[in-house]
Amino acid sequence: MKLRGRPLENICLPAGFSFSSASAGIKASGRPDLALVEACAGTSAAAVFTKNRVVAAPLEVGRAALAATRGRVRAVIVNSGNANCATGAAGIRACQEVCAGLARLLKLSASEIFPSSTGIIGIPLPVEKILSRLPELSAGRKATKRGIADFARAIMTTDTRPKLASARFCSGKSTVNVLGVAKGAGMIHPQLATMLVYLFCDISATPNQLRRCLKGVAYQTFNCMSIDGDTSTNDTVLLLASGRSGVRLNSPSVPRSFSSALLQVCESLAKQIISDGEGVEHVIILSVEEASSTTEARQVAETVAHSLLVKTAWAGADPNWGRILAAAGRSGIALNPAKVSIQIGDQMVCRRGVGCAFDEKRAHKALSRPQCEIRILLGRGRKSIRFLTTDLTAEYVRINADYST
Amino acid sequence: MKLRGRPLENICLPAGFSFSSASAGIKASGRPDLALVEACAGTSAAAVFTKNRVVAAPLEVGRAALAATRGRVRAVIVNSGNANCATGAAGIRACQEVCAGLARLLKLSASEIFPSSTGIIGIPLPVEKILSRLPELSAGRKATKRGIADFARAIMTTDTRPKLASARFCSGKSTVNVLGVAKGAGMIHPQLATMLVYLFCDISATPNQLRRCLKGVAYQTFNCMSIDGDTSTNDTVLLLASGRSGVRLNSPSVPRSFSSALLQVCESLAKQIISDGEGVEHVIILSVEEASSTTEARQVAETVAHSLLVKTAWAGADPNWGRILAAAGRSGIALNPAKVSIQIGDQMVCRRGVGCAFDEKRAHKALSRPQCEIRILLGRGRKSIRFLTTDLTAEYVRINADYST
Repeated sequence: MKLRGRPLENICLPAGFSFSSASAGIKASGRPDLALVEACAGTSAAAVFTKNRVVAAPLEVGRAALAATRGRVRAVIVNSGNANCATGAAGIRACQEVCAGLARLLKLSASEIFPSSTGIIGIPLPVEKILSRLPELSAGRKATKRGIADFARAIMTTDTRPKLASARFCSGKSTVNVLGVAKGAGMIHPQLATMLVYLFCDISATPNQLRRCLKGVAYQTFNCMSIDGDTSTNDTVLLLASGRSGVRLNSPSVPRSFSSALLQVCESLAKQIISDGEGVEHVIILSVEEASSTTEARQVAETVAHSLLVKTAWAGADPNWGRILAAAGRSGIALNPAKVSIQIGDQMVCRRGVGCAFDEKRAHKALSRPQCEIRILLGRGRKSIRFLTTDLTAEYVRINADYST
Repeated sequence: MKLRGRPLENICLPAGFSFSSASAGIKASGRPDLALVEACAGTSAAAVFTKNRVVAAPLEVGRAALAATRGRVRAVIVNSGNANCATGAAGIRACQEVCAGLARLLKLSASEIFPSSTGIIGIPLPVEKILSRLPELSAGRKATKRGIADFARAIMTTDTRPKLASARFCSGKSTVNVLGVAKGAGMIHPQLATMLVYLFCDISATPNQLRRCLKGVAYQTFNCMSIDGDTSTNDTVLLLASGRSGVRLNSPSVPRSFSSALLQVCESLAKQIISDGEGVEHVIILSVEEASSTTEARQVAETVAHSLLVKTAWAGADPNWGRILAAAGRSGIALNPAKVSIQIGDQMVCRRGVGCAFDEKRAHKALSRPQCEIRILLGRGRKSIRFLTTDLTAEYVRINADYST
């Protein structure tokens, strides 16, 4: 099951950004592995990063740059094929050299450059290869759909297709455009890592305003999905606002419209990422309801979503609610099993801790579809969470166990 | 890779116990699915149970019985093929009926019977089938190696072989025998669950003394292993002491000898269980060292042992230390990646957070063996833990995703 990529015609391009890509030979395949965005003067930025204590060099450099400029970004440089992670002080220097090289070329300060890397861990970044391609990369910038499509392809590693989404809304006579580009699907390939998400919009906002919006939306989307439970060392979500629409984020009714557009884009990207997970055959929309807090709902959702037994049952479209109940039981919350009910597709399969008569074939059929909803009702309160996850197939194992010396 | 079962000749039989088995038709295969131990009068007992909040009926009944008798057990009745879990109040009654039936037959009180069930979740226990076999079961009891071997087979579900271990030590002119029987390998089969461990010895001890010994040993063995990270609803470790050796546990130097014998038996059973995990090709002995506490060492060990990316890398004998470092990084402890070193087999592969030059072929070869040691040095303190775990193979997924309506 694969969600179709959105056709490029429907993509709306925010004003103030230009994109390009190049092949620097970092990927052995020779495919594009270098991508650039240039943003107009005055662009505001906000970012969220992986919570892993092991972080790649570009995250340290990018975080410091954002702090130094107080949320101003003029260019984003991404390389795929090498994560520049676990590379020590040399990795930091390598990243800084790339930023300095690009800054010279674009007549910017190095701290206005935001760097990202994705790919193999523990291998030195081939700085010279990257530097030699920067003039070509800079010259090739286009503020077109073609440009953004090339950018989306160049940041791919094990992705089978580029991931794009956009939304727009009107405020008075002006239109605000929100565009998102993403790569990755958890840490799903030998030594390859990372989810990278770049969000571009032409609203006018301060970095602080952007940060508040981004945190809320990321919590509901990218933080509510899991393929294999592993957290990348390079995960980054960056939001840039050029201000070119002339619409200010703090105008009446705009915050709600903007958050909603941002949410729509991020939800679509999250779904595209999860559907493109290696070996994924079934996407599961897990609703954990009747929790006493969102935190405990998330705890149950994560435990169920990461249970090997649950995930393998989903691979077989097996309506084995006992495994779901058992996973919820070990999630660490003060669960009373006698209050838990479970619904698969449109049928209750377990009511208050006891299995109920249900049409097993119908449940199997529901789970056989590319996408199925499962509800877990905890009987503890009124909080809930929606969590996107996947099955675990033998194909996933085959891909990730594949090793040849 | 499968560890050979210990030959039956080397098994030593503690005095005071007799064993039998029967086929009650709970397993569709018709294989033995009912097992009985009778213990002599005065036998002390202690048990540890699953920490899952969802627990099967026999655990509730058994726990209550142990409390009522203050740690006295005269018989253990085990059925395989049905877990009697998520069966509500009817499940509790079913379990009580079995205990009452056996108590009448053996002229005991029902609370002197300790029940266990293992198998499918959510299906009513076929009480009548069990009751009808009790006379045969009781009549067939043998205090022989054959008896214990039959018992070990009857409690199997997806196990490919029975699991037995024993040890003995001398105190004065007397010999103390410790015998262990186990089944299971995590929750590794569709709707089947449970690790069950029965430990028999002929030492003389109070239930409180036994409990202290058992807790310490279980923490170091059964609580330091993981195949898939799922916790069964039925996990039980029961220790019975008949007193027939005449050696008292509180005599000088006996506590140390006894703990050591018990540890030896439990370590062997833990290894037998993990090696028999479905689809397991490589057993990994994970040492997490230089932690600031055992708790944090365990947290890192569990996160690494449950990482799909790490486990699939092990399946491919891939010395991908980046995945191990990344998993440690998200374990929740205040890790400083720049202090972490990782050793695979006899080689350091990552020193203070940075990859070091190592012979990749040799590391691959070490991981290709049935058993390999991996050390993670956190650089935070002096505490450590040894944790037994396994790779994750496509075969595991195939077995657990296998479903036919």
